[in-house]
Amino acid sequence: MAHIELNNELPGIRGLMAYRPETEAPLNALAELLLRSDDNSLSRGERELIATYVSYLNDCFFCQNVHGALAGHYLECNVRQIDDIKENFAASPISEKMKALLSIAGSVQKGGKNVTPEQVAHARANGATDTEIHDTVLIAAAFCMFNRYVDGLGTWAPADRQFYVDRAPQRALDGYQSSVYK
Amino acid sequence: MAHIELNNELPGIRGLMAYRPETEAPLNALAELLLRSDDNSLSRGERELIATYVSYLNDCFFCQNVHGALAGHYLECNVRQIDDIKENFAASPISEKMKALLSIAGSVQKGGKNVTPEQVAHARANGATDTEIHDTVLIAAAFCMFNRYVDGLGTWAPADRQFYVDRAPQRALDGYQSSVYK
Repeated sequence: MAHIELNNELPGIRGLMAYRPETEAPLNALAELLLRSDDNSLSRGERELIATYVSYLNDCFFCQNVHGALAGHYLECNVRQIDDIKENFAASPISEKMKALLSIAGSVQKGGKNVTPEQVAHARANGATDTEIHDTVLIAAAFCMFNRYVDGLGTWAPADRQFYVDRAPQRALDGYQSSVYK
Repeated sequence: MAHIELNNELPGIRGLMAYRPETEAPLNALAELLLRSDDNSLSRGERELIATYVSYLNDCFFCQNVHGALAGHYLECNVRQIDDIKENFAASPISEKMKALLSIAGSVQKGGKNVTPEQVAHARANGATDTEIHDTVLIAAAFCMFNRYVDGLGTWAPADRQFYVDRAPQRALDGYQSSVYK
């Protein structure tokens, strides 16, 4: 049960967004822009993977499953493969650029000052642009917000991980702007 | 020097927002809504104080000075008084409700799961509404994002704390929506 009376049965951030639609609008606008905008050289799957990894580090069950399922949907990976990336991305079959960006995201999760010039240089050496590095930091930072929002108010989440996998294709079609009402 | 080439000399988040105006819009919309909307039973000063405290815990010099100066402006406190609240709010002359809300914000800063039912019950017993508890958690979570964004990209910040105090009255008039260009 959530820490406050939400007056709805929706899980995770969806219950919070229905409770407080005023704050829902900029939060969904941010998620839509960071994770889905077409004007981005990181694919939707790559951006969802950054969100998934940070949500895993923050131990947010709802977010890591919602976004893990979306990453799997876009990247054509199953739950086990996404879990393997979360648990040890360095040994996973993703690009060196993505490994460098996930390393930066992991540092952001601990706190912004943990990002080092060497990590940034390594990402650049593996083909990351400044905008990709910027967006990686902002996606990681944003999920440090979303994860704390979801868990800080004690929201519930479906325990069956298949729930998230089954919903991912429709969410990929709908996007985040209208997430409360779908 | 920032980790990426921002092509501007603006400090802190302002340099990032000018670099990437696409993401500036929802971020400023969120700040405007959380910290300034009139439809809120927490005063602007109280909300800026939550932002300041979390930014202090995250050791973000730019954010804790920008928002500390705004909290001081609204609450008619000087820098030393705001510093005293950051360093030991329990011993400061703020309301018991604000102490309870800052305690929740401090738990959110560590990670959402650190918020306890007892903290929430204590806030309620001191007059906090569910919406105030919600907004406290979201403000605290949002500053875990803003702080990581500012420090994760290695932005610079004016070292003279009077700079922030001097700017606060104009920022209080302008709000956050147009912060890049002022």
